[in-house]
Amino acid sequence: MNRSEASTHLDKVLANVDANIDASLARLFDLIRIPSVSTDPAHAPDCKRAAEWLKKELGELGFDASVRPTARHPMVVGHDRTGQGPHVLFYGHYDVQPVDPRGLWHSDPFEPKLVPQPDGETHIVARGASDDKGQLLTFVEACRAWKAVAGSLPIQVSVLFEGEEEISSPSLPPFLDTTGAELKADVVLVCDTDMWDAETPAVTTMLRGVLKEEIVISCSNRDLHSGIYGNAARNPLQVLSDIVASLRTPDGGVAVQGFYDGVTELPDAIKAQWQRLPFDDRGFLGDIGLSIPAGESGRSVLEQVWARPSCEIHGIIGGYTEEGFKTVIPAKAQSKISFRLVAGQDPEKIRDAFRAHVRARIPADCSVEFIDHGASAATVMPIDGAFLTKALGALTEEWEHEAAVAGSGGSIPIVSAFKEKLGMDSLLIGFARFDNRIHSPNEKYDLSSFRKGIRSWARILAAFAHDKG
Amino acid sequence: MNRSEASTHLDKVLANVDANIDASLARLFDLIRIPSVSTDPAHAPDCKRAAEWLKKELGELGFDASVRPTARHPMVVGHDRTGQGPHVLFYGHYDVQPVDPRGLWHSDPFEPKLVPQPDGETHIVARGASDDKGQLLTFVEACRAWKAVAGSLPIQVSVLFEGEEEISSPSLPPFLDTTGAELKADVVLVCDTDMWDAETPAVTTMLRGVLKEEIVISCSNRDLHSGIYGNAARNPLQVLSDIVASLRTPDGGVAVQGFYDGVTELPDAIKAQWQRLPFDDRGFLGDIGLSIPAGESGRSVLEQVWARPSCEIHGIIGGYTEEGFKTVIPAKAQSKISFRLVAGQDPEKIRDAFRAHVRARIPADCSVEFIDHGASAATVMPIDGAFLTKALGALTEEWEHEAAVAGSGGSIPIVSAFKEKLGMDSLLIGFARFDNRIHSPNEKYDLSSFRKGIRSWARILAAFAHDKG
Repeated sequence: MNRSEASTHLDKVLANVDANIDASLARLFDLIRIPSVSTDPAHAPDCKRAAEWLKKELGELGFDASVRPTARHPMVVGHDRTGQGPHVLFYGHYDVQPVDPRGLWHSDPFEPKLVPQPDGETHIVARGASDDKGQLLTFVEACRAWKAVAGSLPIQVSVLFEGEEEISSPSLPPFLDTTGAELKADVVLVCDTDMWDAETPAVTTMLRGVLKEEIVISCSNRDLHSGIYGNAARNPLQVLSDIVASLRTPDGGVAVQGFYDGVTELPDAIKAQWQRLPFDDRGFLGDIGLSIPAGESGRSVLEQVWARPSCEIHGIIGGYTEEGFKTVIPAKAQSKISFRLVAGQDPEKIRDAFRAHVRARIPADCSVEFIDHGASAATVMPIDGAFLTKALGALTEEWEHEAAVAGSGGSIPIVSAFKEKLGMDSLLIGFARFDNRIHSPNEKYDLSSFRKGIRSWARILAAFAHDKG
Repeated sequence: MNRSEASTHLDKVLANVDANIDASLARLFDLIRIPSVSTDPAHAPDCKRAAEWLKKELGELGFDASVRPTARHPMVVGHDRTGQGPHVLFYGHYDVQPVDPRGLWHSDPFEPKLVPQPDGETHIVARGASDDKGQLLTFVEACRAWKAVAGSLPIQVSVLFEGEEEISSPSLPPFLDTTGAELKADVVLVCDTDMWDAETPAVTTMLRGVLKEEIVISCSNRDLHSGIYGNAARNPLQVLSDIVASLRTPDGGVAVQGFYDGVTELPDAIKAQWQRLPFDDRGFLGDIGLSIPAGESGRSVLEQVWARPSCEIHGIIGGYTEEGFKTVIPAKAQSKISFRLVAGQDPEKIRDAFRAHVRARIPADCSVEFIDHGASAATVMPIDGAFLTKALGALTEEWEHEAAVAGSGGSIPIVSAFKEKLGMDSLLIGFARFDNRIHSPNEKYDLSSFRKGIRSWARILAAFAHDKG
């Protein structure tokens, strides 16, 4: 259908979304109940179940849908042939993060719970409620409403759901190599990002990349008693701490040599736009119980989290960590470390520089092993173009607040894969909020994110319909 | 009996030890099979069982033995009234370290196993085989042989076994306050130290003290996703690593302000004696897979482990540490840290200085909690005196190598308690070896340590008998 035909259907489609929200929610609950934790091999069968569930749902909507095996967790691919004109590829991921520390959850992470809030909002609390099961279903349910009302979609739609996003999407690049022709479309739509705030929708055009490394430092050939060997025997926890401490400069920068090579300042236009955005540094940090920005001094919090490269320590373990005390000198210590990257930084060069930095600090009688957990470059989308303009318009109509063009501190490696392998730009449109506790205990998705997210996609599909009569 | 009467019995006593070594070993196995891990509350009943077992054994030897409750794990006290003349108090501990990492044990830690070695030695492999169940039983079995052969002991003997040595003996000082008069003797004998080497026995006269602290650093009010908050949110693993790195100087010293106040150089006489000892720096470190001493540069390895104060990191945990990767910024990070102390250092002052050092490095919007795991000052025993001279003579006869007067890097807090509360000096005579893997997986005690340890005590008891006709 063309744009004017689509417009005539839209009100009914939106009404259909609202009328069927309980059924949509029930489907989301079904998907959440499958504990598809991609990093844990024990949950591989659950990942497969989640993929099969999605294939079945797409099939019932009339998509030509199939589950495609990969080296690890399968892909779900679907095509709808009922529309005409522009062709979009929608991407989401059905895998979720682990739930630990389990003890901090107030309810079963895989048994979704509706928790009414004092402000009238309702939280959907569960692992994956936001990231990314709730988000990806907003698109599926929008398609469902269109099919129910108009019998077809306004445009040509393909979908790709993967099960490895939380483990850096190792199977996606080879999959795009073999299946790219089938997936090639005019633009990629990704639903895995945040709103600007609870009222303001956003299209994210700037994503940091990420380099993930794990280091295992080995000193003595066994655990030692510090009463016997203490002081003379090298302690891998001390070596590791010295290395971690050496990674950041006193003013919050990253101390790895060459780390900032190629990093440029934010364009003035974007800086100016960000200054106009309703962003409250104190509120952002205050919400998580902090007050002092930890990144480079002299940079705003938004610059720190969206536009500046950084280094984070995600885990350290070594020695005796149970109750009580044990004067052991452990044989090994290990840490998971990531670097967020911005445009101009080459992940491979940064990896080499990081490893050289670490090796230079390993005593000659000790050793280090590196475990590569993946890497992706930063991505910057063009901030003009018809799809972006139409999407901003549709979002503004739905939310009655002007949609923002935003950056994001997170990394979505698939965006660079789509660009490199298939030459496709991505529009990142998500309905999550800053406080959704994704990757943390008690992850939630606002019921309004879900309902208005579905409505937003319904509007965007209409807006993308071709102009021809 | 007097010395000459004791001498006439000695050969038969030694023969009795050898003849009954299998029965002695069976008793050691019984004691080892009780998993008396003092730091783990779940094992409190096992600690009580170990105490009851010891009381029963002592009772069967004719000791007036009893189990005395404390706030945590009970004491065992026994008195033998059959001897005359000098009165010794023998001390040992029946509690053991935890067994983790369990996966590195080649056999059940609490099912002792005899493992023949290529050199003809036999290892008794089990948790506590050396520290301190094997060691304390050498004394009990020596008393058994004396009773069997002579019907009485050559001197007056009291024993004290505690169950909290591995958790810093919190109940011992109050117990000495209430029970000191009953325990007061001419000298304390402690069996919890090493031989000089496999052939050379040693009496240890210099013990480092220890201060044990745990720190818990809290930053944000929950775990965070680094894609959203990374760079701007303070990372407690980074804060902790900065602190740990700041504790030691580049040349291997300790950087806490005032740490070396009161620390003196080793007397030249002791330095000279240590240089004569058959100690091989390269072999000591080579045995554990290392080659570069980690302590203060310019100090010998022996000085580093026996005579210099130091700092060790025994455990760090925080963030995601399972398989795979998770880009979390944890809310908390924690570490167990100890300082080995030498004569002249006040544990309370060092604790204050350490805590001030840490607090000065906690960002204003973060916090730190300190957990006190106990402290004890260093101890230096007089290196002359009749008991020491007689013990050295008896050891030299048994081992046919001149007994060494040694230091020890380990801390035995009870030694300072005996000195402070009851004015008693301690002689530390042990038969463990450097490579016994105490506190580590596959702890072992050499069968020859056990047998010749029993024989050594049998000789020392005779040597201590009074001179009067």
